[in-house]
Amino acid sequence: MATARLFGKPIADALNAESRATVTGAGPGIPPPSLVSVHRGVDSPFRFYLRRQERAAAAVGLRFRDEALAPGAGPSDLLARLSELDRDPSVHAVLLEHPLPAPFDFYRAVGALRPEKDVDGVGTQNLGRLVAQRPIHAPAVARAALAIARHYGLPVEGERVVVVGRSETVGLPLSLLLAGKAEGIHATVTVAHSRTKDLRAALAGSRTIFSCVGHPGLLTRAVVPEGAHVIDVGLSSVPDPAQPGRSIAVGDADAASLDGWAGSLTPVPGGVGPVTVAELMASCVRAWQLLTAREATEAR
Amino acid sequence: MATARLFGKPIADALNAESRATVTGAGPGIPPPSLVSVHRGVDSPFRFYLRRQERAAAAVGLRFRDEALAPGAGPSDLLARLSELDRDPSVHAVLLEHPLPAPFDFYRAVGALRPEKDVDGVGTQNLGRLVAQRPIHAPAVARAALAIARHYGLPVEGERVVVVGRSETVGLPLSLLLAGKAEGIHATVTVAHSRTKDLRAALAGSRTIFSCVGHPGLLTRAVVPEGAHVIDVGLSSVPDPAQPGRSIAVGDADAASLDGWAGSLTPVPGGVGPVTVAELMASCVRAWQLLTAREATEAR
Repeated sequence: MATARLFGKPIADALNAESRATVTGAGPGIPPPSLVSVHRGVDSPFRFYLRRQERAAAAVGLRFRDEALAPGAGPSDLLARLSELDRDPSVHAVLLEHPLPAPFDFYRAVGALRPEKDVDGVGTQNLGRLVAQRPIHAPAVARAALAIARHYGLPVEGERVVVVGRSETVGLPLSLLLAGKAEGIHATVTVAHSRTKDLRAALAGSRTIFSCVGHPGLLTRAVVPEGAHVIDVGLSSVPDPAQPGRSIAVGDADAASLDGWAGSLTPVPGGVGPVTVAELMASCVRAWQLLTAREATEAR
Repeated sequence: MATARLFGKPIADALNAESRATVTGAGPGIPPPSLVSVHRGVDSPFRFYLRRQERAAAAVGLRFRDEALAPGAGPSDLLARLSELDRDPSVHAVLLEHPLPAPFDFYRAVGALRPEKDVDGVGTQNLGRLVAQRPIHAPAVARAALAIARHYGLPVEGERVVVVGRSETVGLPLSLLLAGKAEGIHATVTVAHSRTKDLRAALAGSRTIFSCVGHPGLLTRAVVPEGAHVIDVGLSSVPDPAQPGRSIAVGDADAASLDGWAGSLTPVPGGVGPVTVAELMASCVRAWQLLTAREATEAR
């Protein structure tokens, strides 16, 4: 039997419709959520995400702008600018390009934002709140992986699942969401990674696998248990075999190897990606709700 | 063959000697590290820890005092006091009783401390820094479990280990230390907990098990794989069968059941406990070093 493909679009569409309804339902005179995306302004993979953010923001009714750091701007300029955005009441949500090359210090920079405005949940305040089971924002890509597992009713609650990859922005936050109480998932979670001696043994017995490595071909039927479900969060760019000189996006799963073996599989592209952008927009809407509720309280 | 007992005392003694050498080596005129333990002042299990902290502080050369909240003091009084302690340059380390009953908000209160002074690493800043692989302080009990595994050379690096328990102050921080890069452990970590459907299956294949639940008798040879090593972080108080009316401390492991089955086992008491207090003192010394180094930099 062919392995079912778990597409992200229906989930993203439903989430975007919900976000749009929240924004338009706020009534006249209330400014919509505002997202500012801060980046280095040079040619980086982040540029690709900016266009997607812009399109999604338009679909949901958010104000969006991107801000490039001035050429030659250093860590203290970035810190000063993020502090300004943190104080600016017309800005509800800020994204910062990640990773940032030296001498920039990503965590120091993003630490200038109050956790409500750090909408991708990557600052240490938000990461710590994940551990403490009091999340404000969790990384959108981790939320997206969870949303897919929930939407398609994959076995996770109380089940053994594996997160492959231990990055601080994807693998570890996802493992905390899955294992924790705040999201009601309660999975028994294993985190495997590049230093795992025997990936096959680590995956044995797992019902659902979340792969967040960025290593094409990592997951084949040689390591994935038969019938396990695979949420492919990995994203790599490889040469397009059909069009020399162009590249295509691929995940961690070897789809040909897993077809007819895995229980189901999210495609790349078209799986986690679209849901991630929708989750990011939903976080912006939540930030706007939190911050405007606080303003209203303070004005009383 | 009888299962080896992994005692904490040699590790605690070595760590305390190291801390003491650092403190006494600072030279004349430099005030020693100062730890303030803040608690509700009523009869709580925390009182037991205060006496142990006081003794350990004396052994290492720290100034120690405990502060009870005034009767009737509320969350805002606690917040104000912690903010004062945060600003007080003569205080390097602050502990706050945990958990705190409502209406107190533990995370809000401990958030008044800069991460350097939150020596038990339980505030969201420090927990987030664990996720981000940039720790300042990690919970002493998690560090103690790790120190024991290291001292006795238990199989953890790249190996499959299980943390049983997902509390935000013990289980989750320990799993992050074990799985992460910052401590050089690189274990493949599974977090199991009360909602794990099949504990035996979750423990199968693990070489080292860290149990942090507080559920006496949880770990028996029915669930622990033969030969696995057990670090017993659990701590419960049960009636003493030998002396009616008195109670004794026990861990999560059923020592009688595991004897001759587990590869090794930390006793309770005498295992993780003494190392925890020594790790706490070491964190106070580190806080003092961090804060006095910063003062020296700022004075320049």
